[in-house]
Amino acid sequence: MPKRTVLDPQGQTIQHALSGLGYAAVKDVRQGKFFVLNLDGWSRDEAQKQLDRISKEVLTNPVIEEYRFEIVE
Amino acid sequence: MPKRTVLDPQGQTIQHALSGLGYAAVKDVRQGKFFVLNLDGWSRDEAQKQLDRISKEVLTNPVIEEYRFEIVE
Repeated sequence: MPKRTVLDPQGQTIQHALSGLGYAAVKDVRQGKFFVLNLDGWSRDEAQKQLDRISKEVLTNPVIEEYRFEIVE
Repeated sequence: MPKRTVLDPQGQTIQHALSGLGYAAVKDVRQGKFFVLNLDGWSRDEAQKQLDRISKEVLTNPVIEEYRFEIVE
């Protein structure tokens, strides 16, 4: 997800398109990505640690994006 | 989110990259998009109806993607 302080031109384009289609109630749109990872072989604690690393080092650009993750069993 | 039956080459590429980085516990990756919409002027019921239309007609390609949404107040 782009940080609040970072412009999101894709989101703006979508908001503009929706407004043109009559959806004036949509005041703002931000676009982000998500990933569903299937894990096998990590304990919950280990998954927590590794996912934090993967998020920071592989899946996001921490300069302009923020992330969060959830572990579901 | 691409439907289960649809190939997700981006997800596969990420899974492959993670595997190469030593994260062998990550067995599968699927990538999707999400949107955060700021709404103003719709009741919850109306938002539910309109968001379903927006999701189906604007934000996703229902042939290859599935969607869900959540309304948070």
